[in-house]
Amino acid sequence: MLSWVDGQDATALNLQNRGLAYGDGLFETIAVRGGRPSLLARHLERLALGCQRLAIEVDLALVRNELLQFAGLLGDGVAKLILTRGDSQRGYAPMAGAPARRILQGSPLPAYPAANAEQGVRLFPCQTRLAEQPLLAGLKHLNRLEQVLARAEWQGTAFAEGLMRDGQGRVIEGVYSNLFLVRDGALLTADLGRCGVAGVMRAALLEQGAALGLPMQVRDLTLTDLEQADEVFVCNSVYGIWPVLEFAALNWPAGPLTRKLQAVARTLLDT
Amino acid sequence: MLSWVDGQDATALNLQNRGLAYGDGLFETIAVRGGRPSLLARHLERLALGCQRLAIEVDLALVRNELLQFAGLLGDGVAKLILTRGDSQRGYAPMAGAPARRILQGSPLPAYPAANAEQGVRLFPCQTRLAEQPLLAGLKHLNRLEQVLARAEWQGTAFAEGLMRDGQGRVIEGVYSNLFLVRDGALLTADLGRCGVAGVMRAALLEQGAALGLPMQVRDLTLTDLEQADEVFVCNSVYGIWPVLEFAALNWPAGPLTRKLQAVARTLLDT
Repeated sequence: MLSWVDGQDATALNLQNRGLAYGDGLFETIAVRGGRPSLLARHLERLALGCQRLAIEVDLALVRNELLQFAGLLGDGVAKLILTRGDSQRGYAPMAGAPARRILQGSPLPAYPAANAEQGVRLFPCQTRLAEQPLLAGLKHLNRLEQVLARAEWQGTAFAEGLMRDGQGRVIEGVYSNLFLVRDGALLTADLGRCGVAGVMRAALLEQGAALGLPMQVRDLTLTDLEQADEVFVCNSVYGIWPVLEFAALNWPAGPLTRKLQAVARTLLDT
Repeated sequence: MLSWVDGQDATALNLQNRGLAYGDGLFETIAVRGGRPSLLARHLERLALGCQRLAIEVDLALVRNELLQFAGLLGDGVAKLILTRGDSQRGYAPMAGAPARRILQGSPLPAYPAANAEQGVRLFPCQTRLAEQPLLAGLKHLNRLEQVLARAEWQGTAFAEGLMRDGQGRVIEGVYSNLFLVRDGALLTADLGRCGVAGVMRAALLEQGAALGLPMQVRDLTLTDLEQADEVFVCNSVYGIWPVLEFAALNWPAGPLTRKLQAVARTLLDT
């Protein structure tokens, strides 16, 4: 598949890259359809925020241009964009003047079972808890061992996603997705000020929900909130929305608001 | 400098390596003197523990042999050993059968000011807090953004190290080192069950302290413990021990137990 480093074809990266040494960087996973990156502005917005918070200097206009060019060549697939603080000598202190590295990797659009979107999915109850780190919360950074450990907790296809909680037991997100609850017609999703990845689709749905005049709450969520939910769904920027049918002893239908927003998400991804 | 991937000369790594994608791996920073890796058994022991806890499969005898060979060629310097879960397609789930990758990078022994060991150092009070993640605590894994952020908090040479606390304010460690306190002849160091890196020199000193019959406590440490300490020092497996003279408004002398253990550490590194 297509693979670039700093705008050039490449399949390898300098061993001294800080992405490898420390996970010192950010990434975006971007659906590409018909040569166009979906939700481009939102991906770039999150990346800009991440660069600001981690103090990574990069020409984001260049990143955008490369991504557009890459997507055009990719056609249909997923473009993974990794941005690292660049290369350095040994030691946590960055090397002055070392340019950030821009990595783009193409892969096919994942072949998820159609039933995930049509009927819904089961969530595996992950034991791996998300640590509270406000300085990194919300960012899609390269320190992802918690997700690796959580994903390793289940095998097979019975569970399409796993539910992750924080050290206090709060309900946060899926391993690959954000989580929404519907209750009495209102949309609820977890506050991500302590941990979690603030997904691009989550942000888009919050905006769409506001435009639709839905009551919405971004706040701490507990297992009790899950128990009391009328509908539950997970979302990300590759597949849009999957209804959640089951988590532990709890069950929900793929309800009307989930279906409505699923159509909204599909439109967002296709335009 | 010398640089190997899987036992072969290499300066680059496959872009699909999980070390880059997720920080999915471990590392060791090993002092090499006269072609011999210092504290080899302890480094390999920690690596083995990390592999076990992260379920990374690797032939550790092979790692040991490569490291010995690499150190022989390096002569004097620092060998950084990185072990990653190997390459994979997009997604947190590991690819079945993908071999772990063994990376070795050589660098010169760092030229620390002689005063660090002889007189002592000042600790910068880092605002970056260590998150509590018992599943990763103690390991020297590749998710090191907290250290990157902490190290970026100060510039210049007034501070040779920074002190890191956890989200509850407990005193944990240095950015590059572990911390010991001396009080009434007893040796105190932080419990690393929630966060922190369990350093190889820390382990060696705890063992040496036991052999010397010193009273020792591994427990949660607070700022009050720092205030009440008679001596404070930091340690790692490259420089051994540096006395700590100052942190915030607190001051300590480079005391007798610190000096005694400094000599012990030097011997450990040289043999």
